[in-house]
Amino acid sequence: MKLTIERAALLKALGHVQSVVERRNTIPILSNVLLSADREQVSFSATDLDMEIIDEGMAQVDVPGQITAPAQTLYEIVRKLPDGADVSLSFNGDDPRLQIQAGRSKFNLPVLPAGDFPVMSSDGLSGRISVDTGDLIRLIDKTRFAISTEETRYYLNGLYLHTVVEGGETKLRAVATDGHRLALAEMAAPEGTAGTPGVIVPRKTINEIRRLLDDAGENVELQLSPQKVRLEFGRAAALTSKVIDGSFPDYVRVIPKDNAKVLLVDNSLFAKAVDRVATISAEKSRSVKLAVEPGKVILTVRNMEAGQAVEEVEVDYDGEPFEIGFNARYLLDVCGQIGAETAEFRFADPASPTLVLDPADPGVRYVLMPLRV
Amino acid sequence: MKLTIERAALLKALGHVQSVVERRNTIPILSNVLLSADREQVSFSATDLDMEIIDEGMAQVDVPGQITAPAQTLYEIVRKLPDGADVSLSFNGDDPRLQIQAGRSKFNLPVLPAGDFPVMSSDGLSGRISVDTGDLIRLIDKTRFAISTEETRYYLNGLYLHTVVEGGETKLRAVATDGHRLALAEMAAPEGTAGTPGVIVPRKTINEIRRLLDDAGENVELQLSPQKVRLEFGRAAALTSKVIDGSFPDYVRVIPKDNAKVLLVDNSLFAKAVDRVATISAEKSRSVKLAVEPGKVILTVRNMEAGQAVEEVEVDYDGEPFEIGFNARYLLDVCGQIGAETAEFRFADPASPTLVLDPADPGVRYVLMPLRV
Repeated sequence: MKLTIERAALLKALGHVQSVVERRNTIPILSNVLLSADREQVSFSATDLDMEIIDEGMAQVDVPGQITAPAQTLYEIVRKLPDGADVSLSFNGDDPRLQIQAGRSKFNLPVLPAGDFPVMSSDGLSGRISVDTGDLIRLIDKTRFAISTEETRYYLNGLYLHTVVEGGETKLRAVATDGHRLALAEMAAPEGTAGTPGVIVPRKTINEIRRLLDDAGENVELQLSPQKVRLEFGRAAALTSKVIDGSFPDYVRVIPKDNAKVLLVDNSLFAKAVDRVATISAEKSRSVKLAVEPGKVILTVRNMEAGQAVEEVEVDYDGEPFEIGFNARYLLDVCGQIGAETAEFRFADPASPTLVLDPADPGVRYVLMPLRV
Repeated sequence: MKLTIERAALLKALGHVQSVVERRNTIPILSNVLLSADREQVSFSATDLDMEIIDEGMAQVDVPGQITAPAQTLYEIVRKLPDGADVSLSFNGDDPRLQIQAGRSKFNLPVLPAGDFPVMSSDGLSGRISVDTGDLIRLIDKTRFAISTEETRYYLNGLYLHTVVEGGETKLRAVATDGHRLALAEMAAPEGTAGTPGVIVPRKTINEIRRLLDDAGENVELQLSPQKVRLEFGRAAALTSKVIDGSFPDYVRVIPKDNAKVLLVDNSLFAKAVDRVATISAEKSRSVKLAVEPGKVILTVRNMEAGQAVEEVEVDYDGEPFEIGFNARYLLDVCGQIGAETAEFRFADPASPTLVLDPADPGVRYVLMPLRV
């Protein structure tokens, strides 16, 4: 293998794939990136056995071939090379190492055979579904904060992507929950979505997808199977990932429908007040009490050791007074996603789930479980 | 105690003192800041028993008094209050807590009596020595990176500040070393320095001084004693600290005087090349070999596992070829402090200390111990 590639193209492609590589690997080849040089381009592939990312770059290929080399070291070297440099990558039988040369810099990296590199099959995937990049970014941004990190309930460690039919309309919907809060975002289902299976996409995959979407074109191509998800990001980069083998819980019955106590509040003022009173809250529970009454809500945090905090925030509410408690962190996460100036809270009672809506985006819903206060 | 103070003034003063407070304290009152309200100002004091920082802010004092409250919680609250807010702080016998009020925010924090707060004496300090703020910043910035973090040689865990007479001129000199490298920076001794004792100022104190210098006026007032150092930063802030009770080693004989092999190199190109080859170096030794010959230096790193890196850098050198090894991190630290475009290396032989000079600043000297390669 022998090729020359512009440093910027090499850095971009390696940047897209290298973050999949786990820092510590018991299987040595998983620390490596697979380089495949063919005609006028070179492709880069990295995997953790659950997910694979491939990207390509234009290159001048003198001798086609394949080899694997340490992904992170190669990325670090290329990152530190001067901007605008031409980088030559070569491997031949004489030296059992990959040679990297740019100007007066010369590196040799240990290699492992390309034949040993695990490749993920794309069997059984659906046809390509074209999804607007901005819409997919929105689905992820509005929901991923609620993905559970608790490993015992592994089926909550991902984003549940599926289609629903409501009022005759088909929607593509993303849902995440950790049992304490839930986030839902949906969009009109793109053509070809009908009949695709619902899948739970692991958190690591969601984060990689989100990162790659920043460099994607206007549309990305989505493919689904009961076991896998695949995304093509414009011309070059593609991600294939296993999905979580489990059933997402029946979340629909958790979303309140008849919460009658509607409260409107300036989202920014409310978030700042929650953040201030949370200064006093105990590390673990972070519990804040909301005393809701006509025209205002009083936020209180009491902590035996750290003291007490009280904030008053003007609200648009004219029902019966009541008190309800929430985890301050969860309140702030939701406020952070509200796009409108006003956040809309719909309460039932202090023991039942509260619905939070974003007047700027009717396609999202947040549910918060109250804490006892 | 009852006072009202503008949020910005309160935040600045608390910001100056709160970083002294250790995150975990076995003595509860050391987590607190001492508030002393008197006439038209309030002073804030924090200590870790080795160092004390005091700052003041203009305030409208209705009832003078003193109390202590948790420094970090108070700082966090004030930081989160809206810009431009007036903050009232009050404490009276009715409620055994400090009350903080700003707009519709109200906080109560637990207190401890002001009488229990440890105060550091200023006994035995010299007269005030006026030092140019920029000069003191330079002494610290050029040297503190070489302060040892190894606790067994506690007398190296600080910056050695002392006066020397060279060629009839008195200099104020700062020296730091960890036994592997040494950094020295000096300035013409300010008036009043003569006869002051040499002191080893602990790293934490140096870092706090450096931080406070950013907000200081043109000059700061320095006082010394064999046990303590004190600095006044313009009108308000003052720091008093114990110094390290030990003898700084006789560093002068470590600084080479007759190193005859002079090499000049573009500092930025050299640093980037060192950084690139270091990508390959083993985590611990980070050893890089310099093969010096007329007109160029070849940097090499060989690592059994990670591969090999070779870089060539043009230099101005016309002596005998030789090879010498250094810790890449230490080379980069020194390059990072060189102000000139060119770095000047003065070598003796591969086993002896190397001198590094900054053509832009004759008042600094760096010494690097070579590694065996």
